[in-house]
Amino acid sequence: MSKEITARAVDYSQWYNDLIIKGELADYSAVRGCMVIKPYGFGLWENMRDVLDKMFKDTGHVNAYFPLFVPKSLFEAEEKNAEGFAKECAVVTHYRLKNDPDNPGKLIVDPEAKLEEELVVRPTSEAIIWNTYKNWIQSYRDLPILINQWANVVRWEMRTRLFLRTAEFLWQEGHTAHATQEEAVEETVKMLHVYADFVENYMALPVIKGVKSANERFAGAVDTYCIEAMMQDGKALQAGTSHFLGQNFAKAFDVRFSDKDNNYDYVWATSWGVSTRLIGALVMAHSDDEGLILPPRIAPLQVVIVPIYKGEEQKAMIDEKVAAVVAELKAKGIRVKYDDTDNARPGWKFAEWEKKGVPVRLTFGARDIVNGIVEIARRDTSEKQNHNLEGLVGTIEQLLEDIQQNMFNKAKTFRDENIRSVDSWDEFMKTLEEQSGFISAHWDGTPETEEKIKELSKATIRCIPLDNPQEEGKCILTGNPSKERVLFARSY
Amino acid sequence: MSKEITARAVDYSQWYNDLIIKGELADYSAVRGCMVIKPYGFGLWENMRDVLDKMFKDTGHVNAYFPLFVPKSLFEAEEKNAEGFAKECAVVTHYRLKNDPDNPGKLIVDPEAKLEEELVVRPTSEAIIWNTYKNWIQSYRDLPILINQWANVVRWEMRTRLFLRTAEFLWQEGHTAHATQEEAVEETVKMLHVYADFVENYMALPVIKGVKSANERFAGAVDTYCIEAMMQDGKALQAGTSHFLGQNFAKAFDVRFSDKDNNYDYVWATSWGVSTRLIGALVMAHSDDEGLILPPRIAPLQVVIVPIYKGEEQKAMIDEKVAAVVAELKAKGIRVKYDDTDNARPGWKFAEWEKKGVPVRLTFGARDIVNGIVEIARRDTSEKQNHNLEGLVGTIEQLLEDIQQNMFNKAKTFRDENIRSVDSWDEFMKTLEEQSGFISAHWDGTPETEEKIKELSKATIRCIPLDNPQEEGKCILTGNPSKERVLFARSY
Repeated sequence: MSKEITARAVDYSQWYNDLIIKGELADYSAVRGCMVIKPYGFGLWENMRDVLDKMFKDTGHVNAYFPLFVPKSLFEAEEKNAEGFAKECAVVTHYRLKNDPDNPGKLIVDPEAKLEEELVVRPTSEAIIWNTYKNWIQSYRDLPILINQWANVVRWEMRTRLFLRTAEFLWQEGHTAHATQEEAVEETVKMLHVYADFVENYMALPVIKGVKSANERFAGAVDTYCIEAMMQDGKALQAGTSHFLGQNFAKAFDVRFSDKDNNYDYVWATSWGVSTRLIGALVMAHSDDEGLILPPRIAPLQVVIVPIYKGEEQKAMIDEKVAAVVAELKAKGIRVKYDDTDNARPGWKFAEWEKKGVPVRLTFGARDIVNGIVEIARRDTSEKQNHNLEGLVGTIEQLLEDIQQNMFNKAKTFRDENIRSVDSWDEFMKTLEEQSGFISAHWDGTPETEEKIKELSKATIRCIPLDNPQEEGKCILTGNPSKERVLFARSY
Repeated sequence: MSKEITARAVDYSQWYNDLIIKGELADYSAVRGCMVIKPYGFGLWENMRDVLDKMFKDTGHVNAYFPLFVPKSLFEAEEKNAEGFAKECAVVTHYRLKNDPDNPGKLIVDPEAKLEEELVVRPTSEAIIWNTYKNWIQSYRDLPILINQWANVVRWEMRTRLFLRTAEFLWQEGHTAHATQEEAVEETVKMLHVYADFVENYMALPVIKGVKSANERFAGAVDTYCIEAMMQDGKALQAGTSHFLGQNFAKAFDVRFSDKDNNYDYVWATSWGVSTRLIGALVMAHSDDEGLILPPRIAPLQVVIVPIYKGEEQKAMIDEKVAAVVAELKAKGIRVKYDDTDNARPGWKFAEWEKKGVPVRLTFGARDIVNGIVEIARRDTSEKQNHNLEGLVGTIEQLLEDIQQNMFNKAKTFRDENIRSVDSWDEFMKTLEEQSGFISAHWDGTPETEEKIKELSKATIRCIPLDNPQEEGKCILTGNPSKERVLFARSY
């Protein structure tokens, strides 16, 4: 049973799967397209969730929980939303199994337990939530509602990939209700910035903030804002979206409020979400052929300590030194593990923790420790240095910050080097084929042209960046006039 | 729209529903038997979850996440478990909706998108988890596995009640795997004690620890341990269960391991869970006719401050004093809200926060505050006292502890007063009808007698208490010999 990671250059896609499976983030399951998030992967998600949850609360949001199921009649109320998700939703039709009369020990669906109305397993919760908000909102005094939910959702995707695209995934979905369009747009943009802040400062992944073109908009949104990240193969990954929903859901569910002057109007809405897909982005953006490289701020383990010794006496001496360092690290809030299991050699442990992307490894060797020396290895650059036990914890604290920053810088340099401006169709196709990355190019602004470009190149408009410089130009495909460049890329 | 709570004496069941709805813990939803957990209720659940999660981690467990769906063939593998849950499970049969050709704008289930194998929405996760553990366990070195999962589950109950019995509910389920029976039993009991610790010390609710009789055992368990709490109407509520599963699931999913001597054996299992049902217990055990009474340690808000003033000048003076107290309370980690909304009178606010069960209310009145005096009202006893601003925070800190302790003591006194020993069938029925509560009585140990008692009295054996004194006696129904008393009660 090989524990080796396939090299990126050999098979990029297999490299990604190996990172997940052999890094023990997740495992396949018996359910088509669904995965098991293993303890190490879930620890990562917990750290991400906790940071995000605090950010949401700091911006005035509270958590709540809405039902998993959406009755079909509610699901279809907002037409575009329904159309967008109808083709990929799991549907509960029965509420009971019974013994199979022909096969003892086997069960069959009880035909007598058919639901009067089918239930859709939520692919997103706008419908069930706005149907609820209807009862909560009468007057402007009931607004705004700033609610977030951490939940599982199901989208029956035909082609699935661990973390990036699974039938069931975990996410958070914010659903806010406002008295004015202005306030709702402000909320939409605010949450986009929260996402960008999180992804850049915790996941060490630079993003481009922008607005989606009409073709790429969330089903039911007036405007979809997004953050786009670049993976190591140059492809784009949408890392989070924040939707200005206008009054679409308020109209579909008849949610009106009276303002101070007793005038009635429909409520304005936003929704925004990020999911376990972010783990896929994290893995694909930072890792190397040895395994995962996790940013210190969210890594489940920040420091691992491996002892090298012969015999119980040396072990006891190391244990004592390690205990002191571990206590000091923990007091600083640093997540540390002492890997003193006796069933593997140090070299095997080194490889194992490299695979798992632990930012810092300390080696306590019996020979060096008598001189007060330990070895520090950083995962991001593979650099090693000897360091005195004295002052060690301070150095590690600083090193974790350096690694965090270095990972961001490296990803940003790569990203910036791989955004290219092109001004013709030939150049566009050539760049896409030969260099991948993002392409900044003029587009005539029509959905038809965008669709045609997608057909011809498999690249889509990832976003129209916020604060995009305005310049005169010609659409790379049609030659029609254009006022700004947009970002194209192939994407996950 | 009345905001009043129905009195317990008038309609106990309506009182309970009023507490939930008017205390804003939850709301009904458009989905049969499913509820919406509102922000205030979810805040309570978050506090409970965070304490429990820390307890689980402190006892060596880690979190993970397993799929929502269980393929039917896995679901039926452990026969008793399948039989126990088959009658109440939501079944996904299709993965797509399509436009209804006869009704524009409506959707129907696409008959062409029928799943080859139906998926059961997990009512509990033993099946999917043990099917996964099979791949993770080869040798004793892979054991123990100590995993917990926070998740939603679905049980299609015919009669539902907010929190106590809902089709979908939130819970945690621990699933552990062990090399020996001894270790698994130890784990089962350890987690029972963790639950008892949590319910008693955080929810202020005394519990009786015990073992279920065979009739009341979890489907698929060898032994079910439980904690039982008494509600204000004397009925029992099962507050948590911890199951010793023996090798049942290991055998159903063929999960074997090799020990140090290379002998193969099936793995030993436990599972244990508590759910949002605990909120129902909390509400029903402590509340009064004015509303909820929440224990300080898990209350979403511990202190609410209401100002009484006329005019902006008085308001500004109060704001300043409040700001200092709020800052000091927050620095102590106390959850506090300053309710200075201008759309309600103080009396209305008092009633509102009483309904929501906030443990301590402070009133900052303009007249008293000039003398440095505020009023402290405690929710549990309704007592009020004036207090100097000086030393206020220290008093509140102590008061919160007193309230926590007082709530527990009150519930314990009530519980202890309502456990009665009876020695005959007539006495049993009379006690049940006239006094409710728990009844300690002899039972001949047979499932048949237990079933008969249930039929005749609607009371069940809640548990055989741990460390139960052994004494000779006669079964209250059959007169057959018995060696110990067991606890009977009607239950939720």
